[in-house]
Amino acid sequence: MQKHTSINRQVLLASRPTGKPTVSNFKLVETPIPEPQDSQVLLKTLYLSLDPYMRGRMSEAPSYAPPVKLGDVMCGGTVSRVISSRHPQFKEGDLVLGYAGWQDYAISDGRDLQPLGEMGQPSLALGVLGMPGFTAYMGLMDIGRPQKGETLVVAAATGAVGSVVGQIGKIMGCRVIGIAGNPEKCHYAVAELGFDACLNHHEAKLEDILREACPEGIDIYFENVGGKVLDAVLPLLNNKARIPVCGLIADYNRTALPEGPDRLGLLMSLILRKRLLLQGFIISLDYGPRYQEFRQPMEQWVREGRIKYREDIALGLEKAPEAFIGLLEGANFGKLVVKL
Amino acid sequence: MQKHTSINRQVLLASRPTGKPTVSNFKLVETPIPEPQDSQVLLKTLYLSLDPYMRGRMSEAPSYAPPVKLGDVMCGGTVSRVISSRHPQFKEGDLVLGYAGWQDYAISDGRDLQPLGEMGQPSLALGVLGMPGFTAYMGLMDIGRPQKGETLVVAAATGAVGSVVGQIGKIMGCRVIGIAGNPEKCHYAVAELGFDACLNHHEAKLEDILREACPEGIDIYFENVGGKVLDAVLPLLNNKARIPVCGLIADYNRTALPEGPDRLGLLMSLILRKRLLLQGFIISLDYGPRYQEFRQPMEQWVREGRIKYREDIALGLEKAPEAFIGLLEGANFGKLVVKL
Repeated sequence: MQKHTSINRQVLLASRPTGKPTVSNFKLVETPIPEPQDSQVLLKTLYLSLDPYMRGRMSEAPSYAPPVKLGDVMCGGTVSRVISSRHPQFKEGDLVLGYAGWQDYAISDGRDLQPLGEMGQPSLALGVLGMPGFTAYMGLMDIGRPQKGETLVVAAATGAVGSVVGQIGKIMGCRVIGIAGNPEKCHYAVAELGFDACLNHHEAKLEDILREACPEGIDIYFENVGGKVLDAVLPLLNNKARIPVCGLIADYNRTALPEGPDRLGLLMSLILRKRLLLQGFIISLDYGPRYQEFRQPMEQWVREGRIKYREDIALGLEKAPEAFIGLLEGANFGKLVVKL
Repeated sequence: MQKHTSINRQVLLASRPTGKPTVSNFKLVETPIPEPQDSQVLLKTLYLSLDPYMRGRMSEAPSYAPPVKLGDVMCGGTVSRVISSRHPQFKEGDLVLGYAGWQDYAISDGRDLQPLGEMGQPSLALGVLGMPGFTAYMGLMDIGRPQKGETLVVAAATGAVGSVVGQIGKIMGCRVIGIAGNPEKCHYAVAELGFDACLNHHEAKLEDILREACPEGIDIYFENVGGKVLDAVLPLLNNKARIPVCGLIADYNRTALPEGPDRLGLLMSLILRKRLLLQGFIISLDYGPRYQEFRQPMEQWVREGRIKYREDIALGLEKAPEAFIGLLEGANFGKLVVKL
């Protein structure tokens, strides 16, 4: 176990971004390591998860969760080691999943912690076996309801969620078309993850190449990006297509509505005419109690090598802001975590 | 039984409308009454149903059903009397529900006919006990899933579908807010149908009065109109709200997309943030086999007076075009049928 110093480095939200966040929206500070009180533990962060939803927490716009307050530590899921414990259910050395945020050390009363046991690769609890994997599984299985032979389209195909969505789709017998941001990612999605095809969304004629890749239309579109990918998908949707809406990363930095014409009514008319199902979900709020339903098959698939994963690891807490900014631009390749 | 002449009057689709249909899109012709062949019946139309979906059949734009061809008889659900039968399962005098279209007489091979038995008011098979009632029931119960104490908003509140949606909502224990096109309809929705409130969509500040009428937000919006009613509803939707999408009558005559800004991404972001469910459905395609599930409780509710209905009856086939044009403008008050 690492020896700990007396300094706790924290990344605070210094200001709210307009459009794209910049490093100046964050501030790295040093504070003393807090002391656990009765029924508390002191945690040392091993891995911090960086995820697109954090962009929402930086803004004051209404959302399903309150924003991070200015001057507060940025929020985030973490894998931590219990450094000292005055809590009856945790002891020094325990590995736990928690929500300690962007800092070296944190105090917890244990209610937000899940014991991890010993894991060969504990960061997986932030990725394929954690929130992103759970999101992929529930969104696809419960809302998308894949049937053998159907066509599934997923964007951010090599990302933490998209890569798992596509691989589960293959296990379920779907034709899986990924969309990603560069040729290397597209190659990986096909060669390593087993997708049937993967398209580069920087291609000028995304709708045309998507149409070619989906000769029988699209039955499930797992929505995690929005923007021009959605535009290309809409005309290709089959009757009774399902769209789990899990994220809209392409829109998160948007400051104003795009210019017209107004296609809100067009989307409604597609929903009616093609009898589409669109359903938004937030994994923690909507599926929390069904975690075991996901965990058991996913651990087995990972063990058997049927679900592969890739991590993009930033080294050091001080790298978190720029790594996060890159995530919103698709600069990561695989599940983005910070190793502290 | 009425004596029949040798003339069959038919209303044909003469031309396709651009925007609002006009009477010149229709043509009344007289043809000889056809003779039934083996395994056929000759039907005399008693009541013709006029419904918003017919606007879609007048256009060549892609839809869930092919358009009526130019020069063909306009399509439509009908209650008819069997005038002569060479079909083993039907006999002269039988009352049947069918799809004979806008004409006095029609031939059928029986496959599209449902025997009605003797009904005191056979036109109800086109309304509260027919397709509109079935649409209301399934859309609300299967997609809307009303819970006691929730707020349900329904537009076209005195129409064939909306009036039933709201009344079922009351039976299920919801607070029901209707939206209709004039004070008389609003009064009827509250005083006769038992809605908690009904708002006139011609009021300048629809969003404001809707917000006042829904102090706890909106849990179910039964979408059958679109347009500015949807605009007023969107900001008031609660987390986990459900939107069965059954019709968009406000948009049916639209010839071009409205001016921007483009709110498609805004709708997607609401779906994500509020975890909304939007689902389009076409009653005949999606729920046909579940008709009995609707019929039994609905007949009982009608018998008990818990579901009331109102019919707007146009007299004579020649009145069908202008009655239909009025329907698209909300000129009808209650389920619109033509009595032949």
